[in-house]
Amino acid sequence: MKANNMVIAQSGGPSMVINGSLVGAVVAAKRSGAKIGRILGARHGIQGILGRDYIDLRKVTAKRLDAIARTPSSALGSCRMKPTAEDCRRIFEEFKRLSVGFFFYIGGNDSADAARIVGEEAEKDGYPLVVYHIPKTIDNDLRSCDHTPGFASAARFVACALKGDDLDNRALGGVKIDIIMGRDAGFLTAASALARENKGDGPHLIYLPERPFSLDGFVADVQAAMKRHGRCVVAVSEGIRDANGELFAKKFANGERDSHGNLQLSGTGALGDFLAGHLKAKASVKRVRADTFGYLQRSFPGVASEVDLKEARMAGGVAVSMALKAAKGAAGVPVKGTIGIQRVKGLRYRAEFVALPAQAAAKFTRSMPDKFIAKNGHDVTKAFIDYAKPIVGELPHCEVL
Amino acid sequence: MKANNMVIAQSGGPSMVINGSLVGAVVAAKRSGAKIGRILGARHGIQGILGRDYIDLRKVTAKRLDAIARTPSSALGSCRMKPTAEDCRRIFEEFKRLSVGFFFYIGGNDSADAARIVGEEAEKDGYPLVVYHIPKTIDNDLRSCDHTPGFASAARFVACALKGDDLDNRALGGVKIDIIMGRDAGFLTAASALARENKGDGPHLIYLPERPFSLDGFVADVQAAMKRHGRCVVAVSEGIRDANGELFAKKFANGERDSHGNLQLSGTGALGDFLAGHLKAKASVKRVRADTFGYLQRSFPGVASEVDLKEARMAGGVAVSMALKAAKGAAGVPVKGTIGIQRVKGLRYRAEFVALPAQAAAKFTRSMPDKFIAKNGHDVTKAFIDYAKPIVGELPHCEVL
Repeated sequence: MKANNMVIAQSGGPSMVINGSLVGAVVAAKRSGAKIGRILGARHGIQGILGRDYIDLRKVTAKRLDAIARTPSSALGSCRMKPTAEDCRRIFEEFKRLSVGFFFYIGGNDSADAARIVGEEAEKDGYPLVVYHIPKTIDNDLRSCDHTPGFASAARFVACALKGDDLDNRALGGVKIDIIMGRDAGFLTAASALARENKGDGPHLIYLPERPFSLDGFVADVQAAMKRHGRCVVAVSEGIRDANGELFAKKFANGERDSHGNLQLSGTGALGDFLAGHLKAKASVKRVRADTFGYLQRSFPGVASEVDLKEARMAGGVAVSMALKAAKGAAGVPVKGTIGIQRVKGLRYRAEFVALPAQAAAKFTRSMPDKFIAKNGHDVTKAFIDYAKPIVGELPHCEVL
Repeated sequence: MKANNMVIAQSGGPSMVINGSLVGAVVAAKRSGAKIGRILGARHGIQGILGRDYIDLRKVTAKRLDAIARTPSSALGSCRMKPTAEDCRRIFEEFKRLSVGFFFYIGGNDSADAARIVGEEAEKDGYPLVVYHIPKTIDNDLRSCDHTPGFASAARFVACALKGDDLDNRALGGVKIDIIMGRDAGFLTAASALARENKGDGPHLIYLPERPFSLDGFVADVQAAMKRHGRCVVAVSEGIRDANGELFAKKFANGERDSHGNLQLSGTGALGDFLAGHLKAKASVKRVRADTFGYLQRSFPGVASEVDLKEARMAGGVAVSMALKAAKGAAGVPVKGTIGIQRVKGLRYRAEFVALPAQAAAKFTRSMPDKFIAKNGHDVTKAFIDYAKPIVGELPHCEVL
C-alpha cells in the first residue's frame, strides 16, 4: 500500500489568514475519505519534522478548526529555514517512518522554495512524495498569484489604520509618516490609498520600493503637500531604496538576517524616526510624527478581509485535491506544485485556483507593475484601486465636518 | 433675553469616541427646544473661537451626526492651548457678539483646566457663561471619573493588538516588546492583560509608570519569562520612569513640548528600539522585536468599545442638560462644571453621570491605584481585569493548537 499519510506545516511570517489555509487543507483531507490517512501538523515548519513534533489534526473538532481558521498567526508555529540536502535526507527518513506520501507547506516565496527543494531532493532520492506549496504572504509578491492569501487582510488593516491616522492628522495638523511592511514589493503600502474617502483625505504621498527614494525629493513633496492641504500624511514602505537600489533602511538595520539572507526590517522604528527628524530639520515643519505599523499589520484579530479568509481556506482545500490528483498521475497536475490564484475577467470579482509547478512561486518575487504606480512616483493609479478594492472589502465609513 | 447660543469644541489628543460626546451634546441641545439657540462648533478648540471659525451644527442631519459619532478623531479639529487671561477677554468679546451663554469643551485634564480658566475669567469679567467640560482621555487619568470616555476603546485596540502579537510571538519565538501610550498613568498598558485567553498567553510582563523601571530588573524579568515560556511578550508604557521618577523616554525625546508643558513621547519608536537593543546585548536573546503602537491606539476605525461609544454620547448629552439646569440656578449644579462618571456597585455593570465642579477634572491627573498593580510590580491584578472587562467588552476569540 502506498504511503498515504500527510504532513502539513506553516513557514515564514504569519498572517491573519494563514490558519485559514491550514484548516482548508485539513477539512479537505478529512473529506477525502480513505485517500489520506493521518493528518499531521508539524510544529514550526520543517523544524517540527526534524524534531518529530506533531499535532494529530484529525482529532481537532470541526468547531475548533473553524475558530482556528479565524485566529491570526500560524497556529502550528513557524520557522525561517532553508532545508539543506542533509535536512531533506532526515525528512525522508522521518516521512518513511510515518508513511507520509503528502507534504503541504504554507508560506511565501522562501517557503515555496523550501517545498521545491524538498520535492527535488525526494525525486533524487527516489522517495515517492507529493509536495504542495500553499501560497501565503502579506507582501503579495508571489509571481504565481494575482494576489496572495494574507495580503488583502493586511491591506485592510493598513487602509483602516491610515483612515484613522488621517483623521487624527486632520485634527492636530503637521506631518504624519507611517512606515508599512513590504521588503521588495509596494503592494501593502499602496493599499494605504484605499483609506481615501473624502476630498483632501490622505495619504497625500505614497513611497514604494519600486521607485527610487531621495531625501531631497521627499522634502520637496512634503512641502508641496503642506502648501496644498495644510497638513500631510505619508505612507512609506519599509523597503524604499535609493537611486542605487540600496535599501534605505540598511542605514539603521542591525544586520540580523534569516537563513534565506533577508535583512530584518520590521520590529524597529528607526526608519520612521530618521525621516521625521530629517523633515523637522529640512522642511521647517513643526509637528512631525512617525509610526511604524510593525507586526500588527499581519496579526490583528477581527480585521481580516472576508474574501481573503474564504480564499485562504480554498487555497488549502484546492492544494489537497490537486495533490490527490497528482498522486493518481493526472495529466498536467504537477507532483511538486503550488496553488496559483487567477482573477477571472468580468464585471464581478471572481478568482480561480490552479495547480502550477512549485518553482512558479519559489525564490524570486514580483514587484508592483508599472500600471499600478502613478507617474509622479509617489502615488498609485486607479488601476491599483480597482485591483485591490474587491479583495479588501468595504471599509468602515468615516464622516467629516 | 439671556444669551442662549452655545459653542462646543474639542481639545487635546483625539480618541475613537470623542465625536460621540460631540454628537451627544448636539443632539441634546437640539432636543432642548428653544432653551438653546444656535449650536456652533468651533474648529480646533479655543483657536476656532479666537479665529471666528465655526460650523453650524444645527444644520447637520441626524444621519450624518450618527456617522460622525462613529468616526474616530476630533471632527471639529483639536488644539493644545492653555488660554491666557488676554485670550479669555477676546473669547468673551466673541461670545458677546454671538450671544453665547453656553460653552462646552471636550477633552482631558488640560482641556478641563482650560475650561476652568475660561469659567473663572468669565466670572471675574462678569460675563454670564455656563461652562462644561466633557471628559475624554484614552489615558483614563481624570480624577473625576471611574473611567473616561475614550479609554475603553483604546484599551480594546491595545488588547486586540496584544492578542494578535502574542500569537505572532508564539509562532516565531523570541522577545516582543510593545510600547503603549500613557504618559502618567498605566491604565492603557494594563489593558494589554485583557489579551490573555489561553494558558501561557502573553503579555508575560507589564511595565507601568506607577512602578520604578530598572534595566537590570527588566533583563532579569525577561530571562525568567523566557525560561518559563520559551518566549516573552512585554507590554511597556511610554511613561515608564526610573527610580528617581525621571521619565525613561526622556533620554530619547526631542524636547518638543506643548503649551501645557507636556513632552512629546508618542510618534517615535526610540524607547522600544532602545529596550530591544539592550535585551539583545544583555539577555543573550537572539530574536528581539519592538513595536510602538503610536497613534493607531486612539484612532483606529471599527475597533471602538460599544459601551464606550454609548457612554461618550451620554457624557455629551448629560453635560448639556446639566448646563441648562445650572443656567436656571438649580441647587448643587455648578456653573463651571465637568461630568463625572461613577460606577454603580452591583452584579451587572452600570454607570452614573453626575455634575461636578470643573476643577475636579482639571490639571492634576490620577494614577493606577495600588489594588490594580500586582505585587511583583510587572503585572496587573484580578481587580483590574474585573474593572476593565465590562467597559472594553468581549474580544475576538482566538483558538490555539
